Amino acid sequence: MAFYAPPIARLLEELERLPGIGPKSAQRLAYHILRGDTEAAARLADAIVEVKRAIRFCERCFNFAESELCEMCADPTRDATTMCVVEEPRDVVAVERTGEFRGTYHVLQGAISPIDGIGPEQLRVRELIDRLGRESVSEVILATDPDIEGETTALYIARLVKPLGIRVTRIASGLPVGGDLEYADEVTLGRALEARREM
Amino acid sequence: MAFYAPPIARLLEELERLPGIGPKSAQRLAYHILRGDTEAAARLADAIVEVKRAIRFCERCFNFAESELCEMCADPTRDATTMCVVEEPRDVVAVERTGEFRGTYHVLQGAISPIDGIGPEQLRVRELIDRLGRESVSEVILATDPDIEGETTALYIARLVKPLGIRVTRIASGLPVGGDLEYADEVTLGRALEARREM
Repeated sequence: MAFYAPPIARLLEELERLPGIGPKSAQRLAYHILRGDTEAAARLADAIVEVKRAIRFCERCFNFAESELCEMCADPTRDATTMCVVEEPRDVVAVERTGEFRGTYHVLQGAISPIDGIGPEQLRVRELIDRLGRESVSEVILATDPDIEGETTALYIARLVKPLGIRVTRIASGLPVGGDLEYADEVTLGRALEARREM
Repeated sequence: MAFYAPPIARLLEELERLPGIGPKSAQRLAYHILRGDTEAAARLADAIVEVKRAIRFCERCFNFAESELCEMCADPTRDATTMCVVEEPRDVVAVERTGEFRGTYHVLQGAISPIDGIGPEQLRVRELIDRLGRESVSEVILATDPDIEGETTALYIARLVKPLGIRVTRIASGLPVGGDLEYADEVTLGRALEARREM
């Protein structure tokens, strides 16, 4: 038996395809859209279509971009000798937010995960090596996630890049600033101890 | 400084307007849309626009409908002598799921909540009384939420309807008090319907 009119059922189905949206969340979102004004719904629909129309991948670093190059790659004031390698475009945003980095990026578009069938060939690793051959990069900062996939990916890339005579660094693992020692997991705390610095 | 390209920023902004979607969820959804294929994004956008185009309120019971009347009101096999009064269209779906009810509905489109400035005038109460004058209803089942607003609304409507010589019942508490009708499982809600009491 159909409990929902087909247009509602269809919207629920599409909403449930989104990550982290189950039946209850989909229902809440659908009812919000149904109760809201038509202009609000049109704006949302248009933003979805427009983002797919306007956004592509940067031809150089594979970040999201509005033209051939992303904002960072098109900016001549950025330091092209330092390259930060990340997994996803959202990681570029995270690094940019620190205000600590003025170099360029390379977005792998994932991390090595044999269990998910993702090897270096599925990532933008070949493109990274190509760039290092073409550009004058003196340091590659590996800013992949500090999890198993990210560490594996960092190790893999380090092994490829070091023979090119380029300095390879890895972002530090440690306790989050403002965090509590007693709530840190033992792996993180172990890393923080290992990476202790002279004061 | 702009961390996101404008089309992405715009999509994030629209997504964050949705209930229960904070900045992190919006980012996850936006990235899913950006990484997915254009057809999937178009389907979602179209479902949003279409639901607003195709769905209106039933002229009789104020449930969501695809034409003047909703599916239930248009169904001549439903028992028009028993009317179930609910707060929202989603509550109609919840009651339908029990399979215990074959009467008609009346959707109040909310509940009395003085704190939110919602009185009987903001709800479809006048339309309910009109219907009861026009239709041959012998029992009104009050299935508003078992919370303060829902109980207040049920009491208010009971006081209006009983003088009309119509039997007024309230779904049984069996539902957790302070809970939400839409989250009840169908067995519990079915029992509650079955065990409705005279008011």
